Amino acid sequence: MKLWLSGALVEEAQACVSPLDRGFTLGDGLFETLRVKAGAILRREAHLARLAAGARVLGLALPAAGLGAALSATAEANALSDGVLRLTITRGMGPRGVLPPAAPVPTVVITAAPLPPPSPPARLVIAEGTRRNERSPLSRVKSLNYLDNILARQEAAGWGADDAVLLNTRDRVAETSIANLFAVLGGELVTPPLSEGVLPGVMRAAVLAEGAIERPITLAELVTASEIFLTSALGIRSVRALKGRDLPGFGVAERLRGRIVGA
Amino acid sequence: MKLWLSGALVEEAQACVSPLDRGFTLGDGLFETLRVKAGAILRREAHLARLAAGARVLGLALPAAGLGAALSATAEANALSDGVLRLTITRGMGPRGVLPPAAPVPTVVITAAPLPPPSPPARLVIAEGTRRNERSPLSRVKSLNYLDNILARQEAAGWGADDAVLLNTRDRVAETSIANLFAVLGGELVTPPLSEGVLPGVMRAAVLAEGAIERPITLAELVTASEIFLTSALGIRSVRALKGRDLPGFGVAERLRGRIVGA
Repeated sequence: MKLWLSGALVEEAQACVSPLDRGFTLGDGLFETLRVKAGAILRREAHLARLAAGARVLGLALPAAGLGAALSATAEANALSDGVLRLTITRGMGPRGVLPPAAPVPTVVITAAPLPPPSPPARLVIAEGTRRNERSPLSRVKSLNYLDNILARQEAAGWGADDAVLLNTRDRVAETSIANLFAVLGGELVTPPLSEGVLPGVMRAAVLAEGAIERPITLAELVTASEIFLTSALGIRSVRALKGRDLPGFGVAERLRGRIVGA
Repeated sequence: MKLWLSGALVEEAQACVSPLDRGFTLGDGLFETLRVKAGAILRREAHLARLAAGARVLGLALPAAGLGAALSATAEANALSDGVLRLTITRGMGPRGVLPPAAPVPTVVITAAPLPPPSPPARLVIAEGTRRNERSPLSRVKSLNYLDNILARQEAAGWGADDAVLLNTRDRVAETSIANLFAVLGGELVTPPLSEGVLPGVMRAAVLAEGAIERPITLAELVTASEIFLTSALGIRSVRALKGRDLPGFGVAERLRGRIVGA
């Protein structure tokens, strides 16, 4: 695989970032995961818009232009017809200390990977060990600070489950370690609003455009759902069990897959 | 400067980590900052014990031994008599995805820096823009996920202040972006307990051993403090103003500096 590194394509094994890069020392950066389907990068502008929104929260000046072209160049260099691109942007190198340097030079990395095999419907647990922090703007930013998600994912693996639902500090439903969550509750398709500590997923927006409703979801409500599914840039994944309880419905997800490209 | 990189000393400009390292892609790692004074690494065992405690939270297997010797080797290679070491350990390289690989090979980086010039008493503001998440075990781990701290520090800089007090999700006092906080309240020296979303600072422990008390501190109480000071591995820093209000007292910090090595 070749990857994009701040302006050039290099072999993955030769690619090198400084251990003084603030992405490495402080998680000071952002990323996006993009689906490539039949040679096309799906919803590229929506992903770049979310990246720009995150950069404003961090006060990180994005490279003026060229990220879209760099994504395409990385896909082409790897003959990636169906797969996944990941764009990482950090604040670049900095001296010791938390305050960013006055004139940071961002580091840009784009990696390509083949499409993972299709995922069967997921078995979910509730993460008991940590909470998403809806009081931090970072809960709405796809940043490099992924340790809470890693802890939740490890907890799921410990139970033999595929993923874990993260609650927020009010103990309401936020999302899973890698996806937004939708539930059919009383016949309505519902997902928590961003204020619950939710990443503004690009596929989430596509499902909302099909008529889903945003409102807070308690754990007690989630347990009554007739159908649950997860959305990410890689598509819509049905959920077949929550905390060991089987979920009967797959119909809403199935119908959306027929309507949304790459879902 | 020479830095330690997973077993060898290399010139800083030649040092290279992979952009696929999980420290870079997900902030999946830990760090420690250690003070070197007159050639001695202060409280090295306490720092390594905290690192080991964080590694248990992350499920990260530390290298069996040798971190202490690596710290010494890095200090010696840079003729660092008075200064600062930073030890970073990440989960190493991994494929796409949040779940750690089955057999990770950690990356270890140790950098040396001269001692920063002595800091004058700090002017603090209260960070309005984010909150520490006391519901996450990461609030008690010195991990690479530092973006909330960066946001708070940027907020302080925007007000012309030196640092910002981070509140937790219950709006009580936790710490600042780079230090633990102590306040003299009604004649008692008080600091919030770890359960408030507080990093177990090594210097904090040294001050507790001198008789300070752990209890939650509300913002309304903090405003009434007769003295406030901050502790980090670099020492004890007095606070001269909180949100523009002058603080008269420096005596408790002064006395502790006389009693604690490197404070």
